[in-house]
Amino acid sequence: MTDVVVPILTPFRDGEVNKEALRLHAENLLEKGVDYIFLNGTTGLGPALYPEEKLATLEALRDYADRVIFQVGELNLDKAVELARKARDLGVRAIASYPVYYFQRIPEKHLVKYFRDLCASASLPVFLYNYPLATGKDVDARLVEEIGCLSGVKDTNESLSHTLQYKLRNPKLIVYNGSDSLVFASLTFLDGTVASTGNYVPEVLVMMKNLVKANDFEGAIKLQSLLDKLVEIARKYGSFSANYELVRIFQGYSIGKPRPPIYPLEESEIKTLEAEVRSIKDMITELTS
Amino acid sequence: MTDVVVPILTPFRDGEVNKEALRLHAENLLEKGVDYIFLNGTTGLGPALYPEEKLATLEALRDYADRVIFQVGELNLDKAVELARKARDLGVRAIASYPVYYFQRIPEKHLVKYFRDLCASASLPVFLYNYPLATGKDVDARLVEEIGCLSGVKDTNESLSHTLQYKLRNPKLIVYNGSDSLVFASLTFLDGTVASTGNYVPEVLVMMKNLVKANDFEGAIKLQSLLDKLVEIARKYGSFSANYELVRIFQGYSIGKPRPPIYPLEESEIKTLEAEVRSIKDMITELTS
Amino acid sequence: MTDVVVPILTPFRDGEVNKEALRLHAENLLEKGVDYIFLNGTTGLGPALYPEEKLATLEALRDYADRVIFQVGELNLDKAVELARKARDLGVRAIASYPVYYFQRIPEKHLVKYFRDLCASASLPVFLYNYPLATGKDVDARLVEEIGCLSGVKDTNESLSHTLQYKLRNPKLIVYNGSDSLVFASLTFLDGTVASTGNYVPEVLVMMKNLVKANDFEGAIKLQSLLDKLVEIARKYGSFSANYELVRIFQGYSIGKPRPPIYPLEESEIKTLEAEVRSIKDMITELTS
Amino acid sequence: MTDVVVPILTPFRDGEVNKEALRLHAENLLEKGVDYIFLNGTTGLGPALYPEEKLATLEALRDYADRVIFQVGELNLDKAVELARKARDLGVRAIASYPVYYFQRIPEKHLVKYFRDLCASASLPVFLYNYPLATGKDVDARLVEEIGCLSGVKDTNESLSHTLQYKLRNPKLIVYNGSDSLVFASLTFLDGTVASTGNYVPEVLVMMKNLVKANDFEGAIKLQSLLDKLVEIARKYGSFSANYELVRIFQGYSIGKPRPPIYPLEESEIKTLEAEVRSIKDMITELTS
Repeated sequence: MTDVVVPILTPFRDGEVNKEALRLHAENLLEKGVDYIFLNGTTGLGPALYPEEKLATLEALRDYADRVIFQVGELNLDKAVELARKARDLGVRAIASYPVYYFQRIPEKHLVKYFRDLCASASLPVFLYNYPLATGKDVDARLVEEIGCLSGVKDTNESLSHTLQYKLRNPKLIVYNGSDSLVFASLTFLDGTVASTGNYVPEVLVMMKNLVKANDFEGAIKLQSLLDKLVEIARKYGSFSANYELVRIFQGYSIGKPRPPIYPLEESEIKTLEAEVRSIKDMITELTS
Repeated sequence: MTDVVVPILTPFRDGEVNKEALRLHAENLLEKGVDYIFLNGTTGLGPALYPEEKLATLEALRDYADRVIFQVGELNLDKAVELARKARDLGVRAIASYPVYYFQRIPEKHLVKYFRDLCASASLPVFLYNYPLATGKDVDARLVEEIGCLSGVKDTNESLSHTLQYKLRNPKLIVYNGSDSLVFASLTFLDGTVASTGNYVPEVLVMMKNLVKANDFEGAIKLQSLLDKLVEIARKYGSFSANYELVRIFQGYSIGKPRPPIYPLEESEIKTLEAEVRSIKDMITELTS
Repeated sequence: MTDVVVPILTPFRDGEVNKEALRLHAENLLEKGVDYIFLNGTTGLGPALYPEEKLATLEALRDYADRVIFQVGELNLDKAVELARKARDLGVRAIASYPVYYFQRIPEKHLVKYFRDLCASASLPVFLYNYPLATGKDVDARLVEEIGCLSGVKDTNESLSHTLQYKLRNPKLIVYNGSDSLVFASLTFLDGTVASTGNYVPEVLVMMKNLVKANDFEGAIKLQSLLDKLVEIARKYGSFSANYELVRIFQGYSIGKPRPPIYPLEESEIKTLEAEVRSIKDMITELTS
Repeated sequence: MTDVVVPILTPFRDGEVNKEALRLHAENLLEKGVDYIFLNGTTGLGPALYPEEKLATLEALRDYADRVIFQVGELNLDKAVELARKARDLGVRAIASYPVYYFQRIPEKHLVKYFRDLCASASLPVFLYNYPLATGKDVDARLVEEIGCLSGVKDTNESLSHTLQYKLRNPKLIVYNGSDSLVFASLTFLDGTVASTGNYVPEVLVMMKNLVKANDFEGAIKLQSLLDKLVEIARKYGSFSANYELVRIFQGYSIGKPRPPIYPLEESEIKTLEAEVRSIKDMITELTS
């Protein structure tokens, strides 16, 4: 049994979290077969949200709390712990956290202590969110073993082997890879995928899950190549910005704009983006109808 | 005329910014010949401070505002602009900001737009705080030219040549290097140094400035080697944590502890740290008496 | 149909290539079910072999030429072309080459030209040997398309997705991944694996191929974890050096020592290496009997 | 007393080392005030020369042996030792070597052993040639101390501080930085510079040396900015290729073409290169007349 998890975008209106839009977006994803929502991830601009804003995103999804992995990472432990406690009260499936970001050359023992403090703060499952490219730290399988209290890992990493090591060291861990380019392999060899493309083409991820289940790897790889093309296009515009428009283009409803310094696309960019993804959109429509 | 700038530590008490301790620390540094205070830098745990906390640090130093470069960087532009406006009202020498951190593959045009928006938000000098190792972006001399409105640069970079390029492209820019290992060279070839070691050995930095002025490079390099040794020792404990103890050891007053997840040193670590720096402390005492 | 390819070690005696030992080693591997031999790869210390030595390795395996991919890369094009021609005369399956190594910031057009010159020099299939960590260049799927004349790729890369792109761009290419940590995934999603561990545990690779064929991924991953442990142990001693001893330990015959500056292990190291791999050896013996 | 050292280009004719052209080039450089010639460096395509070719370059300069630092690095220790012995017989100032390149994850003790073996092989001064970007290894000040027998270091490194550490650890070492972008700083704080631009603008390097000696740092930095521009232009064409044309353009004589896979520039590229450097050439002519 493998999971399709979506690191959900955070909708804004007038510079504030738009809770209603977030709820509707989550409902759509879950209806389409997504298994879990990863809240306040990188795609959701988590590090740009203040603690009270992170809490607002959780409140928006309180009716689906058991389908939510709630990312509580803060550069102030007390605030992360507060968020963890509220998450427990609301009954989320798990919380997650990245390690300290921005600050480099942090002693390993301090990285370990942070996760242990988080585990101790509230009795609920804690996931590591490992994303070395963004945080500058690799909390790898060896460190997870030293931390000792984690229930799962989301490893955003181009190295499938790196992610697999968590599972090999501790088969009880729930282990996801978070790279959009490794969805096919994550669904084959791991407990699932956390893929930002799921915000706009959840149908494709769910189809891939079914194809892999049926050992149709060739079919899964064909769909993977569609994801790869979408990611490649989005990157030219800045993926964090383009994701908002891609939801509208593929799912048909608006979830607003990102918040500067993650700037929204300009009108002219939106037009070329639409043109660039048109043929892929047609292919997906055909595949899923 | 070159500047010794200190990226001041942020003292905490019970998890809150300790304004009184910050003021006293700044007064000591300025009295010892430090030219400017860089507020909310990396050493000051700026990225871990919420906007209202950044404001508190500024209020603590309002009597010395003209000696303050106030770092306002936030992952929410509106908040950065708010901080910039308050800084202007208080009459700081300049504000500064790092580019978007954590989020990778941000389009260059968005990096440029952020600094232009900041310049436009308040009529006061704006410095770039470039620190590629921490932010994952290099806002280099070419990009600064494109931004167009900056007054200065603090480049935290092991490459002296990289820093010099800002000056060669635009001689009107005030250009500092922010690496503790390049103090000697920054004082010789640039407009100054922003050195975290200035928190605990400001006397050494001021002496180096005078030696370089007198073309005594051999003398400056000897002092540089002391800084290098201190930095090497501090790194073993985690510099961000060790810095707090080093102020107490070298300057004789406590500025409290850092705030988790930047964890304070343990008692046993403090003891070995003291032992490790003892001989350097003696040498500095001798040099400065 | 997927391939198990082994980048064969180069045996030395008195500082010279030991052709007889090389032939016997290759015969053993082929008998055990290895599909192809990759000659003069990194594991075979190819870059440390002079052209006449590369030729000697080919002559040693002339009876199995159709099972040989012959790596001809040289920093002197004329010599690479000479090797390619001799390889064609002897009827190898294909030649391969890494791009220019050591020299950085080589224009893309020159990288392209090198491979085109190689293709033009001799009418036989040419493989790219891409190994960014060693050469400092990434000849990726886009560049391979531009080169136009290649028949296959060995991509030594932790990123499975990177390797898959070659295939997605051009399904006619024969595409191998060369990382020992991705054998399970390469046998599932690509045309095969080129794994240095095949020098000492070819039986494990062949078993993995069969397990994957039977869709027994759990079984394949279990064997992968054995490979991972062996690689981890070998790295502590220096893999290039340890590989020679591991052949003796696991396959029961000596292929000599490496050649300095790839120094042989010391006697005491050999003893601890043997002790460290003993339990893995026992497990493999059990599995394969 | 600081040195201007030039890592001399290796001229080729019909794919062979052109000894006569090499001698004439060296004579010109020495006459213009260059202190030493670094033979078979990266700029000289050293790693692309076979041992007998390296020997040919030495024979070409035998009349100036005391002004030659002879780079002997090979991936076969025996050959490096042979070269070292011949260099000693001819009376070179020193030999030099990079550590093992291409092969990664080499144990530190093997890197150390290589240099010790080289020192032991011939009684003459041995320099480390450290170039992490090209070799993938950083033989830093700590390792040099462990090696114990070295007389000097050429550190090709953007970090001035990294280079200075060799000197701080052992003031008896002769320490050069090999980055063209740090000539001004190397002449101020180190024992000299090894700059590839010296092949075509030796006059500028010699002027910089004199300016620094006179404490005219502003003047030195102005010339540094010319070097920076030349390097920036050369990089667009591939510096290793462009260097050959730049000698002809600036010094007025041809030293032939590089050897593929370091491809020569095309005719159209030569024309645009000439146009791009024209104004810099005029400035230098004016400065040096």
